[in-house]
Amino acid sequence: MNQLFSFEVAAKEGTARAGVFHTAHGPVLTPIYAPVGTQATVKAVTPQQLQEVGASLVLANTYHLYLRPSDAVIRSLGGLHAFMNWDGPILTDSGGFQVFSLAGRDGKQSLRRIDDDGVTFRSHLDGRRHRFTPEKVMQIQENLGADIVMVLDECAVPDDYDYLKRHALPRTHAWAERCKVAHHRSDQALFGIVQGGVYPDLRAASARHLVALDFPGYAIGGLSVGEGKHEMYTTLEATTPLLPEDRPRYLMGVGTPEDLVEGVARGVDIFDCVLPTRVARNGQALLRTDKYNMRNAQFAEDPVPIDATCGCYTCRNFSRAYVRHLLVAKEILGATLLTMHNLYTMLNLITDIRASIVEGRFEAFREAFWDARRESSSAEEGA
Amino acid sequence: MNQLFSFEVAAKEGTARAGVFHTAHGPVLTPIYAPVGTQATVKAVTPQQLQEVGASLVLANTYHLYLRPSDAVIRSLGGLHAFMNWDGPILTDSGGFQVFSLAGRDGKQSLRRIDDDGVTFRSHLDGRRHRFTPEKVMQIQENLGADIVMVLDECAVPDDYDYLKRHALPRTHAWAERCKVAHHRSDQALFGIVQGGVYPDLRAASARHLVALDFPGYAIGGLSVGEGKHEMYTTLEATTPLLPEDRPRYLMGVGTPEDLVEGVARGVDIFDCVLPTRVARNGQALLRTDKYNMRNAQFAEDPVPIDATCGCYTCRNFSRAYVRHLLVAKEILGATLLTMHNLYTMLNLITDIRASIVEGRFEAFREAFWDARRESSSAEEGA
Repeated sequence: MNQLFSFEVAAKEGTARAGVFHTAHGPVLTPIYAPVGTQATVKAVTPQQLQEVGASLVLANTYHLYLRPSDAVIRSLGGLHAFMNWDGPILTDSGGFQVFSLAGRDGKQSLRRIDDDGVTFRSHLDGRRHRFTPEKVMQIQENLGADIVMVLDECAVPDDYDYLKRHALPRTHAWAERCKVAHHRSDQALFGIVQGGVYPDLRAASARHLVALDFPGYAIGGLSVGEGKHEMYTTLEATTPLLPEDRPRYLMGVGTPEDLVEGVARGVDIFDCVLPTRVARNGQALLRTDKYNMRNAQFAEDPVPIDATCGCYTCRNFSRAYVRHLLVAKEILGATLLTMHNLYTMLNLITDIRASIVEGRFEAFREAFWDARRESSSAEEGA
Repeated sequence: MNQLFSFEVAAKEGTARAGVFHTAHGPVLTPIYAPVGTQATVKAVTPQQLQEVGASLVLANTYHLYLRPSDAVIRSLGGLHAFMNWDGPILTDSGGFQVFSLAGRDGKQSLRRIDDDGVTFRSHLDGRRHRFTPEKVMQIQENLGADIVMVLDECAVPDDYDYLKRHALPRTHAWAERCKVAHHRSDQALFGIVQGGVYPDLRAASARHLVALDFPGYAIGGLSVGEGKHEMYTTLEATTPLLPEDRPRYLMGVGTPEDLVEGVARGVDIFDCVLPTRVARNGQALLRTDKYNMRNAQFAEDPVPIDATCGCYTCRNFSRAYVRHLLVAKEILGATLLTMHNLYTMLNLITDIRASIVEGRFEAFREAFWDARRESSSAEEGA
């Protein structure tokens, strides 16, 4: 394995770990939450604002950037870091998840067709036909130039045991091998992806297969796609112990504040999720243990910040009434201020989680977190 | 006159002046261009970004804020400065211009009806009936709490001599007197507005009337509303010499880079215009002597900044190709980056204009400006 991508576990408490993952664009302190910049921009904020809210690792989507402006254009402009002006670490997904999600867009299967060699799909932009294979996806991600890149996998429905076992898993494993062979850039860490739905025996088989391929990091895919929280947590409990201690573990597409706390408790190091940025553009403010619809009339004359204990730009400078006014008036700044607040909430939470592990008080932190949530929801019920 | 609002002319070259106008929220170095923050936000940027591009005076619209969230709410939240988190000087218009513009919205006159006492209109938001009188507009602007506030005037079509002379001017003058009587806040400078369309004799009559009322500053209204550039410039030449040397002159709703140069040459001190922010949201980049449609395919792989000589955040950090990508992908960041660039272009131009006056080389600056414009447009023709 490339020595660049060493992962040091700095502290452990139970299964929770605090670590450092080294990349060509600096260290990633784990556990970490990565904001999502689908089209080479975290929606509604500048890279400067992203830095101010405490972001380190940022995710971008291979599917979207391949279609527009294309990986060739991004490569010619110096790669993703230069293109989007983010000098910190970047992670790209394989594009597989977006392609597999295409089926649902018009209710027909016609937008994509999967076979053992790869997947053929139509662009959601113009309907043109494209094909992703493991080799193609490696070439695209090498062109994009992120620090962490992902193998192509098949992200199937999590509760179809038969399909997973007969088709999705064998493909996922064969594609991981092909990706490993096809990937050449020594400044990129290629992560494997463990699949297997909600079935411990399939997860175990998948983990075994991928670990044998010796990736510098392992993702846990196919979760947070419709199964319940309980299934997600028990699947994590069955999976993370099978992954090597000295490699980071990335839970893809997850999640909420409670998912961060519970994911870390089960040994997860890296998270990404569109939740805080997406709900911001719908007017929702995330707090560590609550959430508000900021369009609500109750905030119309409310002079206090969204969260008086929050240190973000929005909460340091603006009232709830102003944020509500911006949303009602459909002003862009409303989306920007809520995005900054929501990202800060997530990044501040993960920073506090890390500190609690380093200081050996993660379990106390976790208990206090759940106590505060229970208090907040009973206050709402009482209101 | 309130001593707070003294205006010192620091340097003069011909009719062009460099000055300092003092307000309760700090000095305004003139000539100045004020970005427009219609709904208590300069669209698509934070106050921090506004400060970074060099803004000092910011305009907000009384009509819009009166309707939503209401001047009473803004007052209860500590006034506009606290509400929008802008600690620099703020100017509010009287709301009259927006109300008079309402007629055009559905081609009928029914949205507003003017009489000698005031104007009755229907909200463009919900159709409800409202009434502005000079006294009402003063009360609203006192609630909003800007540093510079404007009298209610009638902004009529600029080339109907008879209507202007018989109705619009007498009303404008009577309302100016009533505003002066009704205005009480000693931390606000109330500016008079000279009207009179494109007619030198009417402008002279209006200037005489208003100057007799001894306002701390004078606006020139009713221009840039359809008359040609030539008419605007000759009207300015006929008007500014009639205004006192020791009071700032504000050309409302103007303008383009060339309007700034030519307005200053004719003795204007203050400008405001939605142009740079509005065209930004349509994908247009303003340069001092040119403009680009950044959606244009010619920029798709262009690695250089919008303007290599520009010092703004956008030009220091992003390529034309990236800005185009954001616009094509309909990303909010596209509007933000272009807004920052366009505001910087205008503010940097006015700063350079001021420096040239202070250093006694404004005429040379003006000549070089027009030379560069001619070069840029002949380059375009040649392309």
